[in-house]
Amino acid sequence: MDKKEITAAFIALQNEIITALEQADGKGIFQKDTWERAEGGGGVTAIIQEGNILEKGGVNFSAVEGPMHENVGKMLGIAATDFYATGVSIVIHPKNPFVPIIHMNIRYFEVNTGEYWFGGGIDLTPHYIFPEQATYFHQQLKETCDKTDAAFYSKFKIWADNYFFIPHRNETRGIGGIFFDRLNHTSTPYSKEKLFDFVMNVGKTFAPVYTNLMQLNATKPFTEENKRWQLLRRGRYVEFNLVYDKGTRFGLETGGRIESILMSLPAQASWEYDVIPQKNSPEAFTSELLVKGVNWIELP
Amino acid sequence: MDKKEITAAFIALQNEIITALEQADGKGIFQKDTWERAEGGGGVTAIIQEGNILEKGGVNFSAVEGPMHENVGKMLGIAATDFYATGVSIVIHPKNPFVPIIHMNIRYFEVNTGEYWFGGGIDLTPHYIFPEQATYFHQQLKETCDKTDAAFYSKFKIWADNYFFIPHRNETRGIGGIFFDRLNHTSTPYSKEKLFDFVMNVGKTFAPVYTNLMQLNATKPFTEENKRWQLLRRGRYVEFNLVYDKGTRFGLETGGRIESILMSLPAQASWEYDVIPQKNSPEAFTSELLVKGVNWIELP
Repeated sequence: MDKKEITAAFIALQNEIITALEQADGKGIFQKDTWERAEGGGGVTAIIQEGNILEKGGVNFSAVEGPMHENVGKMLGIAATDFYATGVSIVIHPKNPFVPIIHMNIRYFEVNTGEYWFGGGIDLTPHYIFPEQATYFHQQLKETCDKTDAAFYSKFKIWADNYFFIPHRNETRGIGGIFFDRLNHTSTPYSKEKLFDFVMNVGKTFAPVYTNLMQLNATKPFTEENKRWQLLRRGRYVEFNLVYDKGTRFGLETGGRIESILMSLPAQASWEYDVIPQKNSPEAFTSELLVKGVNWIELP
Repeated sequence: MDKKEITAAFIALQNEIITALEQADGKGIFQKDTWERAEGGGGVTAIIQEGNILEKGGVNFSAVEGPMHENVGKMLGIAATDFYATGVSIVIHPKNPFVPIIHMNIRYFEVNTGEYWFGGGIDLTPHYIFPEQATYFHQQLKETCDKTDAAFYSKFKIWADNYFFIPHRNETRGIGGIFFDRLNHTSTPYSKEKLFDFVMNVGKTFAPVYTNLMQLNATKPFTEENKRWQLLRRGRYVEFNLVYDKGTRFGLETGGRIESILMSLPAQASWEYDVIPQKNSPEAFTSELLVKGVNWIELP
């Protein structure tokens, strides 16, 4: 299980997901840009814009390598001089406000001193929360986790609750999902092979789950008020990504390819002053559920 | 010249500016929210939405005080236990893409160990740069600065070029203006009274200059392409404010009143993948001028 095999599997996964999303959308085609990084490596950024169901999204692959900057080493607490990092990153913004925003990332990192780890996650940001779909989403993630370790889901679900949180709004970004980082044979009871299988299972969960959510919601009729709310919720998504998301901020600070990093931002977003949803409205219902610690699998 | 006088002058300035903007807009009325801060002080947030010319903007006053958090003291390099901070902050997003976005801030800060300073600035972010208007804007700022010190304009203009800069885009936010901080009798040859006069002159420059720019541009016809470009430029404004603006990030980190801090964000903004303006287009003309070091007063 070396970096070449992992990288090849990630490339294949990117292509599988692109195909599945194009089929489910029925109109949008991903535009692929291959780019190279001056210090080593590169990637393939695949962007969809103005599909039938998908308004804007990216399914990105990258594999970068080279000398490790001193401050990055300090931040990670390792003393290596060279690194290799590969991953698949997805953010999808749909047109219909009843289709949720989704994010998925899996990544592998290794350094020349022999250390390595896997990280990643999936989280869902519905503009309108449908409890049965939230349960379905978390149930699917739990099943994926359970294949490797019966304790993973609950551990990584809490991690996601804490990570996908907007402190200045005191709300979660959405209904969370799973988030994990620095998984290796030291931090878990599992071999590199077993952890690679876990990460690939997470990656393979994305397409069937999201295309199902697309199909369930994409033809629901919506009002101007629903669209307005979607744009406001996208504003919160922008706030999270630009202010808190570690991958985004790391990319901005280390001079990553900006158009690939900021593919996560929506085609349109809004901000209005001091919006408070009406009592008992669907918007209020959703807002009240944007908190940590909800047991989505067994809702009351 | 004590904090009470400075605070009273800032409140009066807020009201003057609100009146001038409402008159120039002809329709929009500022909604005023008075708020209190648990640890001491408060403010008046005044927001305009859906005016004739102004789409969304805020003219905010605040005067906050209380115990100084240890990390804030460290950040500022002072060992005081209590602080007082007052200021007026403005960001205006117009409807018509040919009317520029503007930002103005003046502020006064003092601590119980006797240290104090003034800070502030004005900068302009045209979606489309009109050279003669850029020259006019900088000329007005220069005249304001020259009343106090003939060296201020060029010094504070460079400061603005460096401050209102988006490193990950390698572009300035707009055509800059002036920016200054920590002005007091130690860092300048001037008394507190004289520096207060300077800061008030900066504040009083805002309304006549911006209402003039509103009148010059608000009735210009525009196309869908112009509107699209405006939303993309607003996206960059959001990126600057959420990623780099010190006032915004300080506010988010220290638990300031979120709706007052984020009044700087536009009603709508967009992101598209890898937009490159057509050669010789007005959009390309503007993009090429978003660099540091342009001598706006004597354009070639």
